Amino acid sequence: MNIGEDKLIERIRRRIPSAEGGLLRLGIGDDAAVVRPAPHADWIISCDQFLEDVHFLAAAHPPEVVGYKALARATSDLAAMGARAQFFLLSLTIPAERAGRWLDRMLTGMARAAQQLGLRLAGGDTAQSPRSNPKIGLSITVIGVAERGRALRRSKARAGDAIFVSGRLGAAELGLELILRGLYRQRRWKRWLKPHYYPAISLDLGQWLARRRLATAMMDISDGLSTDLYRLCRASSVGGRIYAREIPCVAVPEGLRARGMDELRLALHGGEDYGLLFTVPKSRIAQIPRAYRGTALKRIGEIVRGRGVKLITADGQSSPLEPQGWDHFRQRAR
Amino acid sequence: MNIGEDKLIERIRRRIPSAEGGLLRLGIGDDAAVVRPAPHADWIISCDQFLEDVHFLAAAHPPEVVGYKALARATSDLAAMGARAQFFLLSLTIPAERAGRWLDRMLTGMARAAQQLGLRLAGGDTAQSPRSNPKIGLSITVIGVAERGRALRRSKARAGDAIFVSGRLGAAELGLELILRGLYRQRRWKRWLKPHYYPAISLDLGQWLARRRLATAMMDISDGLSTDLYRLCRASSVGGRIYAREIPCVAVPEGLRARGMDELRLALHGGEDYGLLFTVPKSRIAQIPRAYRGTALKRIGEIVRGRGVKLITADGQSSPLEPQGWDHFRQRAR
Repeated sequence: MNIGEDKLIERIRRRIPSAEGGLLRLGIGDDAAVVRPAPHADWIISCDQFLEDVHFLAAAHPPEVVGYKALARATSDLAAMGARAQFFLLSLTIPAERAGRWLDRMLTGMARAAQQLGLRLAGGDTAQSPRSNPKIGLSITVIGVAERGRALRRSKARAGDAIFVSGRLGAAELGLELILRGLYRQRRWKRWLKPHYYPAISLDLGQWLARRRLATAMMDISDGLSTDLYRLCRASSVGGRIYAREIPCVAVPEGLRARGMDELRLALHGGEDYGLLFTVPKSRIAQIPRAYRGTALKRIGEIVRGRGVKLITADGQSSPLEPQGWDHFRQRAR
Repeated sequence: MNIGEDKLIERIRRRIPSAEGGLLRLGIGDDAAVVRPAPHADWIISCDQFLEDVHFLAAAHPPEVVGYKALARATSDLAAMGARAQFFLLSLTIPAERAGRWLDRMLTGMARAAQQLGLRLAGGDTAQSPRSNPKIGLSITVIGVAERGRALRRSKARAGDAIFVSGRLGAAELGLELILRGLYRQRRWKRWLKPHYYPAISLDLGQWLARRRLATAMMDISDGLSTDLYRLCRASSVGGRIYAREIPCVAVPEGLRARGMDELRLALHGGEDYGLLFTVPKSRIAQIPRAYRGTALKRIGEIVRGRGVKLITADGQSSPLEPQGWDHFRQRAR
């Protein structure tokens, strides 16, 4: 099938929430979007790619999942700053043969994420994939607002702060392993795919922590705890120490544990859970509840002077925790 | 070669202007950028893709050209609104084997465009191309500011307005044809590649027209006059009439005219010149000079009631001008 670019844009506009109004003065259809600042607010801006054969596989990821997840994972960067989500721009590369039914299904998933996350589409760009490589590529820019000066950075953790994580770690990686091992088509494992397909984004928790000034530093766990905690510590010029027995690991079902899926390994190095990693000064620890709106908050260690991250195992042994999560430009370390 | 993602980001940060300060409160290295609104300003936001084998060819476009042009063409959307350029975000997909020398040269070109256009890098995302398709992809989000309510839209042209264009039309297309016909390697044609390689972006002109409130509607000519004027007229619910003899066509050298390169065809349907197309009420026409800072401004026709665009040829014949410029999702009409 072959449709005009203007028609394609109209198709996107019809399916994704994109009405002008409020801060969005001018949306899709002009050269650029016009957004009007809210008083006493900072804009929080991030972008994220979601590419076929890199971040998803056409055979294993239904189009609804592609649309949902592409937008959700981009928005996680806003949650990580404690921002409220506002707008997004979608750059889409698509082969003509998937600009019909596949696109509609992808947009359905994206519209669902936009509704849940409170995002409106403000603009974008479309291109046709070259015939030599008819693959899908999405690049999403998300824009949010935070109260002026309140956005939470990675770089403000201090020695003595407690380290917290939200949610269960490794659940999304478990889903990915089911796909990589070809088990995802078996009905008994279907429900274990959900955290990988439809990650929960912690916008409310991030805003709550920022508003109450409870966290000194924060980021989302997108590339795995070992990598992301390493980055937070490096940005803050501090070290970290975490306790294996405190880490809220995914519960791996018996049949998969027998296949060598290890809970602690998944939790330490598995990416895409999109929980929040944050540090809390000693004096505020008591103000962190066990759960916020149904999401568990777990203290897993503390920030220390020095450099690097150490893992204390159940038997009290301390060893360096190397960043072994997802890095596009390295081989995976496992 | 294989480098870590964090090192890659550091490499980009070192080469592209990205210092925090002014409106940019937090730049590269955190989950998202933080930008503080200027008083009485609107934010103008747009995104644009620049993909290997779609928008450029590795054999014909040196890496410096890729970096320069990717940023320039995205920024043209800010010029089209009458905005001042401020920040950009870069999403980069790159195969490991081009993350060294090729990347450095690309960044050199991009840094040059950033300097010229007044842009600072505020953030981005990197991904490694799949081994099955080791191609480059850039997606750029640009952010500018305009005085509140002054951004110029496509949709406000009125019957009776004069239609103006800036610069010479078809010059970039001439360069593209040299590439597509394999003539670009011949030394005698080298200088004709420049408008295609390094397009001039009309930020100053756009801001001047917006500040003086001289234009009713404006857009950039990225996909060809026939397509872009059609879009402007449709967005404004009006028609257009342009005169072939008034169109400032590229001067095609004799040796290429003999090969069938037609000046009017290039000017009407050739894309990527990135001049501005704007409409001016009758009462303000006298205030438009023949040139603004060295760029010719040419009145080529007028907005009329009704729909569609008509071309009046040199002998006075009127015929519908179909949009035949660049559209990713159609075959090229020629």
